[in-house]
Amino acid sequence: MVFELPAFRRVRGMRDFLPKEAQMMKYIEGKARKTAQLYGYGEIITPVLESYELLAAKAGEEIRSRMYAFEDLGGRKVALRPEFTASVARLVATTLRNERKPLRMFSVGSLYRYDEPQQGRFREFWQSNYELMGSSNPEADAEIMMLTNSLMKAVGLKNFVFRVGHVGVLRGILSQEKVEDEVQNRIMQLMDKKEYDQAIDLVKETERVSSRCSQSLRELVKVGGSKFSDVLGEMERLAEGYESAVDAVRNLKEILQFVSESGEKINMVVEAGFARGLEYYTGMVFEVYVPELNIALGGGGRYDKLIEMFGGEPTPAVGVAHGIDRVMMAMQKQKTTLKTEKEKTVVVISVNEGLKGEAFNISRMLRDAGIPVEVEVMGRKVAKALEDADRRKMDYAVIVGERELKEKAVVLRNLAKREQKTVKIEKIVEKIRG
Amino acid sequence: MVFELPAFRRVRGMRDFLPKEAQMMKYIEGKARKTAQLYGYGEIITPVLESYELLAAKAGEEIRSRMYAFEDLGGRKVALRPEFTASVARLVATTLRNERKPLRMFSVGSLYRYDEPQQGRFREFWQSNYELMGSSNPEADAEIMMLTNSLMKAVGLKNFVFRVGHVGVLRGILSQEKVEDEVQNRIMQLMDKKEYDQAIDLVKETERVSSRCSQSLRELVKVGGSKFSDVLGEMERLAEGYESAVDAVRNLKEILQFVSESGEKINMVVEAGFARGLEYYTGMVFEVYVPELNIALGGGGRYDKLIEMFGGEPTPAVGVAHGIDRVMMAMQKQKTTLKTEKEKTVVVISVNEGLKGEAFNISRMLRDAGIPVEVEVMGRKVAKALEDADRRKMDYAVIVGERELKEKAVVLRNLAKREQKTVKIEKIVEKIRG
Repeated sequence: MVFELPAFRRVRGMRDFLPKEAQMMKYIEGKARKTAQLYGYGEIITPVLESYELLAAKAGEEIRSRMYAFEDLGGRKVALRPEFTASVARLVATTLRNERKPLRMFSVGSLYRYDEPQQGRFREFWQSNYELMGSSNPEADAEIMMLTNSLMKAVGLKNFVFRVGHVGVLRGILSQEKVEDEVQNRIMQLMDKKEYDQAIDLVKETERVSSRCSQSLRELVKVGGSKFSDVLGEMERLAEGYESAVDAVRNLKEILQFVSESGEKINMVVEAGFARGLEYYTGMVFEVYVPELNIALGGGGRYDKLIEMFGGEPTPAVGVAHGIDRVMMAMQKQKTTLKTEKEKTVVVISVNEGLKGEAFNISRMLRDAGIPVEVEVMGRKVAKALEDADRRKMDYAVIVGERELKEKAVVLRNLAKREQKTVKIEKIVEKIRG
Repeated sequence: MVFELPAFRRVRGMRDFLPKEAQMMKYIEGKARKTAQLYGYGEIITPVLESYELLAAKAGEEIRSRMYAFEDLGGRKVALRPEFTASVARLVATTLRNERKPLRMFSVGSLYRYDEPQQGRFREFWQSNYELMGSSNPEADAEIMMLTNSLMKAVGLKNFVFRVGHVGVLRGILSQEKVEDEVQNRIMQLMDKKEYDQAIDLVKETERVSSRCSQSLRELVKVGGSKFSDVLGEMERLAEGYESAVDAVRNLKEILQFVSESGEKINMVVEAGFARGLEYYTGMVFEVYVPELNIALGGGGRYDKLIEMFGGEPTPAVGVAHGIDRVMMAMQKQKTTLKTEKEKTVVVISVNEGLKGEAFNISRMLRDAGIPVEVEVMGRKVAKALEDADRRKMDYAVIVGERELKEKAVVLRNLAKREQKTVKIEKIVEKIRG
């Protein structure tokens, strides 16, 4: 058979992670799992493949048009998940329908969107996702922000900042002005892209909207900063007369209060015009950034209508997702060092064919003690094998020879120090661990 | 919007794992990763989505017809990976082309095949996969078997058995008889399904094949057992005159010798007629079973031609994949208990609204010490919240009250013992850890 080589390339927008980066990805995943445990979130695994209808119902138009959708061999319309929340919502509306609330759920895995590949944006990407369902209280919102902070700290990131907003403020004003949901969504999307002028124009064009409304919105989108009492006070002033908008400001105030009372120092900036594009947010929204990257490392917020939309009982909910590959990029930019316990690495080499079995035996013994071992499988001479081990910065070589073996011993070579001595087999583990 | 509920079901053949099972899946994955470290296998992450041509080139007809294949939005023909080896081979033939050998690579993740769902067979399944590339020596084959043994032991399985064969024996005979590769593949597939009579019939129907050949094969497929010297002796006798078949028997003998010299007691049965369906195996093949399940928990073997086929340098290779969800099933059947360090779990409840911030502060403090905490987010009264914590078998409740707080203390309740006492905040961690 002859194959054309170009077909055997990676698909555009997909990535391979070699050991160094794969280790970082798994390190971050491990920290995310640990964070889930510390906050009481149970891990669930849902399929990568879901029904197209399920995913499309949740996704906004923008994501919907970029899903990997197709028919399976049974003629079902399916798609690769572009995010986790739809799958979790499906579970909560079906299998977990009768579970007591609150439900705290954690997922981690790969997601798929047909975006134009660019820095930090790939068509396959990884997220850790946390959902807290059943509570409408501000403590729940605060918890989701705090666990995000815990995760960013746990991986060793520095100088990260939370951008925080509340879609209830803008939507509260627009709803009281009787702006239709569909128009509100378009306005929020423009806000999300910081196209404030166009957003305000759209408001103005809408029938029956008061001039006060567009004036308030125009001022609101400029309000922001890290002095919460000032910022929130200004927001409340501009929202005056719009009852649910005022409630939203007060809700945000309570959330931020819980976060600060936790004693955790979190860098936060409140932005009244911060909207996050997705249509389903109903309350607090946030994203987290590092100065070195202009894409969000994670983001989330409150979405109280979603479970209903999926046929479940009305269930208030708040959640967050963190881009594992983006967190990795941030760590690379910040030159974060991984805190892992590194065991010494060992190669085991026999001086001749007949001693290979003994080399296997010693390798097994070391591994049983938890020491990583590579056994020589290339049939190389000792000198060649040592050279290779040296090049790859292994720590020790165990050389199995006839003479030493008679004394139940081997040669143990410290590769960095270029020193070696004869050591009883029963003592190797202890010598290696030092 | 009104949605039809049936659309929001899980796609047929897909599964959700709730926390108990998800924990087991991740436990096995963790042990697989640990095993990779102990044997010096570097983890790589390759995409779920690969070019259809890449996956189809590697897969036999049977798997090819059951792939999830489709066109992406850019018109590329792509598919969900049905196994890992094609992706690893792509890497070795491209990015890793100039890396020194041996290359030891580990992957873990989800795979997709449109099989008829049945016990132990789902359309989305998980594997840990190990590839050792660059060595044609029997030590390499032995290593792959040993690491499989290490993994099965590490997860706590008992009574598992290796079925071992060598496709070089059957293929050696057929090749010397000038049976074409394509016919050989069909014969091996029948052997794999234990349809020996049909396999022999197919041999007989083939032009120019000697009567001795079909006679030898008919006897060979009956040869098997755990007394290796007898079994291998009998195999060598039946293969006499077929040079490469005799070499294959001797190769298998060496492999088994290394495994046994490692000092590890491994339950193995050699079967001369054991073929494993996949066309690309060229040498030793094996599968591992437990008595409680009639599906393989894992399997692998040698495939020395594959990298070439993908446009790389000729590279001998041996590998194995383990079904993580199947290992989980086996553990469930054997009632294996997970060896995890379980931290005590704690709920933190405040007696009134005004103390919620303090509850947040204490929760953060406990988590900083590594203790999992659920903070009350439902606004329930203490009695209700305690009842719920009790039902969910949490270990401790921390109750934050006005009076105790004045003394820098809280009430710590041992939920199992139904005992409580006032404890200084600075002492809680120590009291909980006991």
